[in-house]
Amino acid sequence: MKEFTSIRQLPDLQEALREARYVKEHPFADQELGRNRTALLVFFNNSLRTRLSTQKAAMNLGMNVMVLDVNQGAWKLETRRGVIMDSDKSEHLLEAIPVMGSYCDLIGVRSFAQFESREEDYGETVLRQFIEYSGRPVFSMESATRHPLQTLADILTIEEHKSSARPKVVMTWAPHPKALPQAVPNSFAEGALLAGYDLVIANPEGYDLDPEFTRGATVTHNQDEALEGADFVYAKNWSAYGGDNYGKVLNRDMGWTVTAEKMALTNNAFFMHCLPVRRNMIVSDDVIESPRSLVIPEAANRVVSAQTILKMMLRDL
Amino acid sequence: MKEFTSIRQLPDLQEALREARYVKEHPFADQELGRNRTALLVFFNNSLRTRLSTQKAAMNLGMNVMVLDVNQGAWKLETRRGVIMDSDKSEHLLEAIPVMGSYCDLIGVRSFAQFESREEDYGETVLRQFIEYSGRPVFSMESATRHPLQTLADILTIEEHKSSARPKVVMTWAPHPKALPQAVPNSFAEGALLAGYDLVIANPEGYDLDPEFTRGATVTHNQDEALEGADFVYAKNWSAYGGDNYGKVLNRDMGWTVTAEKMALTNNAFFMHCLPVRRNMIVSDDVIESPRSLVIPEAANRVVSAQTILKMMLRDL
Amino acid sequence: MKEFTSIRQLPDLQEALREARYVKEHPFADQELGRNRTALLVFFNNSLRTRLSTQKAAMNLGMNVMVLDVNQGAWKLETRRGVIMDSDKSEHLLEAIPVMGSYCDLIGVRSFAQFESREEDYGETVLRQFIEYSGRPVFSMESATRHPLQTLADILTIEEHKSSARPKVVMTWAPHPKALPQAVPNSFAEGALLAGYDLVIANPEGYDLDPEFTRGATVTHNQDEALEGADFVYAKNWSAYGGDNYGKVLNRDMGWTVTAEKMALTNNAFFMHCLPVRRNMIVSDDVIESPRSLVIPEAANRVVSAQTILKMMLRDL
Repeated sequence: MKEFTSIRQLPDLQEALREARYVKEHPFADQELGRNRTALLVFFNNSLRTRLSTQKAAMNLGMNVMVLDVNQGAWKLETRRGVIMDSDKSEHLLEAIPVMGSYCDLIGVRSFAQFESREEDYGETVLRQFIEYSGRPVFSMESATRHPLQTLADILTIEEHKSSARPKVVMTWAPHPKALPQAVPNSFAEGALLAGYDLVIANPEGYDLDPEFTRGATVTHNQDEALEGADFVYAKNWSAYGGDNYGKVLNRDMGWTVTAEKMALTNNAFFMHCLPVRRNMIVSDDVIESPRSLVIPEAANRVVSAQTILKMMLRDL
Repeated sequence: MKEFTSIRQLPDLQEALREARYVKEHPFADQELGRNRTALLVFFNNSLRTRLSTQKAAMNLGMNVMVLDVNQGAWKLETRRGVIMDSDKSEHLLEAIPVMGSYCDLIGVRSFAQFESREEDYGETVLRQFIEYSGRPVFSMESATRHPLQTLADILTIEEHKSSARPKVVMTWAPHPKALPQAVPNSFAEGALLAGYDLVIANPEGYDLDPEFTRGATVTHNQDEALEGADFVYAKNWSAYGGDNYGKVLNRDMGWTVTAEKMALTNNAFFMHCLPVRRNMIVSDDVIESPRSLVIPEAANRVVSAQTILKMMLRDL
Repeated sequence: MKEFTSIRQLPDLQEALREARYVKEHPFADQELGRNRTALLVFFNNSLRTRLSTQKAAMNLGMNVMVLDVNQGAWKLETRRGVIMDSDKSEHLLEAIPVMGSYCDLIGVRSFAQFESREEDYGETVLRQFIEYSGRPVFSMESATRHPLQTLADILTIEEHKSSARPKVVMTWAPHPKALPQAVPNSFAEGALLAGYDLVIANPEGYDLDPEFTRGATVTHNQDEALEGADFVYAKNWSAYGGDNYGKVLNRDMGWTVTAEKMALTNNAFFMHCLPVRRNMIVSDDVIESPRSLVIPEAANRVVSAQTILKMMLRDL
């Protein structure tokens, strides 16, 4: 695999899940594969889970890891050609990216939506430039529109806990004080559909996601109806995608918080969230602390998903 | 060992010192013990010595190390249950800590006193939560009330230099421009007492430490008397502990600075300090640069103390 | 080698270049040399290339690496003796540096010119103190007056591309919005002269470098004349060195930008720059993107130069 920016790029999801289960059982079995190989992890945005789990995954594979925090204040890359670089941007990506590529074997990039322009965010400017100019296989550690390592961990977690071949999975919007990107819900939707789940997406009006990611899912504005019979509830906040409201917070309706009453509508569903989560905004204390909450094993599977992808990339170097 | 937050938790101090001497002579002898094991070092406060020496200790043992700087501005953890998380705290420790635990085998935590409330500081809120929720053995890299890796290095240094079975050790307060925690003096006092030294603590009135740590020592407000016949002088500033003065600087009396005149009162004592040290506030240039100054070998022993504890923890995994 | 702060300290440049070519072809051949050895990289200034390439070089040699960012705001070292340390400087270098030395086998230091005093910058206060007090071999990762790892990479790159025994190498000043140190041009000049190249240095009046570094080169204020027949064009901005103008920007004359018209004056020269580079200030887009631009292979050779020096230092431990 030469690029991993969407779960759709997996040659075969089921084969990847088999690989993931093997990796989980034998975390140190492939250290020869990573010997003398270096992963460079470039963070344009902060991270706890992604940083630690990807580092751990690379070390499990015997790789060296270098982490680069690109402080957006201190290290600004120019992206436009032809510009006279007399401002605060001291380096052009056309130099910075191939140089980074020359110091490693694989590059991971985290770069969130900026919410200045939907076209620029959904064009994945930063990520595309790493793919084009680094000369190395690139994997996303969350980009403007997707978070595929999270999605692979999510699918693996569902596979480990599902009791029917085609579980009903409800991804529901929930309130949050700040404007958040659509990367996680976009990515989860395409993953759940690829996995063949019965995916229902519940969100308030004005919060419909880009149909590019949700085609094949049932989209509804009625959360209670959606939750009926759900086997998995995947909660997440996102800001508006459509029209002139891109990146805006349209409401903070606490009626959408996932509470015990809401969970009572489901088929004794498991609760999932990618973390970090705002308690009693997204989900109530009792739900996230209940035995049906999968948030910790889901986060633990981030090491497994990262290691699976790194292993596939190493094999193809 | 499943937890190391106080030197009193050592199963046997003398056995730990024997282990420390072995580790110092054979730093790379136990690399199989740490193979494929990962230490996560979480810093809520800055560090030079602790960060480098603990990292070095873990690498000597063949471990992988991940360092996480928790910028208190950028990454605030909610600690209260039941609260609606709509403020600047984006994650609850009930999620963050078990997730960190799932990415490593051992966790080191540095978290200083906040000086907002003595009860909260001495309750060791942050450290206790890592112990309760991480699912991993936890070691302190300095907490609100103790700095046990420093203390073990201090005791080892004294053992390496003492010429009598029960040396007279004087821990003396000295002036400093800022309010400092009591962690190092608390911890040194309990260590020196555990080691069976003749411990005398000299500090100005108003600076008596919590008797929980100093019971068994002689506490005096007369520095000159204390220094008479001392074999080791351990200088340190701390802020007030008692009454309504908790965390306050009550005086900066330069008469307490450890000078050559003061050292002349001792039994040709060795000088010790945990560093960083304010020269000519805590200690004069000539004393810290004298052949009797142990500050550099004391700091070098930080690798040994960390490696000893990590080795004991690895053995019990 | 016990110290590497200038390319002149190489025992033999040609032998070092042979070693560099060997290292480049066999990057993982010397891992026994670095086993259980630790490099500490201390950054007083930010870095992309130096940080990643030196880390990679050390890992290629099987070393452990620890990186310490000395935030000049947060961690200030006192340097004067006899001072009462009651200000914001919490540690004296006389303690900090030997402690760092006690935690590693080799120390790399990056510390730029401060532009407060030419005497202090050219006295290399910080670097000299690491050499004097760390007790370890020290290598420069760019100091106030030199950048020898860059220079070794530059010379190696010229050797790989030259078509005559003694190429004409033109180092030309070019405009930049901010005041930059003289470290790179000083260092390149002494390297190019040591390598025996026909070195011509072109800069506007007022920008002559310290003759200590340039003795033996032709210095001219006419860029066009200098470029005639050049085999290599090495562009760089620097601030004024001489007189009362030390550290000042005297002009931003865009007539000095290296353009295709300028390159047409040369002997189909290769273009070099140490990066980061301001496009269309230092060099035009078409020149830096042309097939004669060596900026990326030059940066890639930073791993090779660092690994060569680290290998020589490890051999002499």
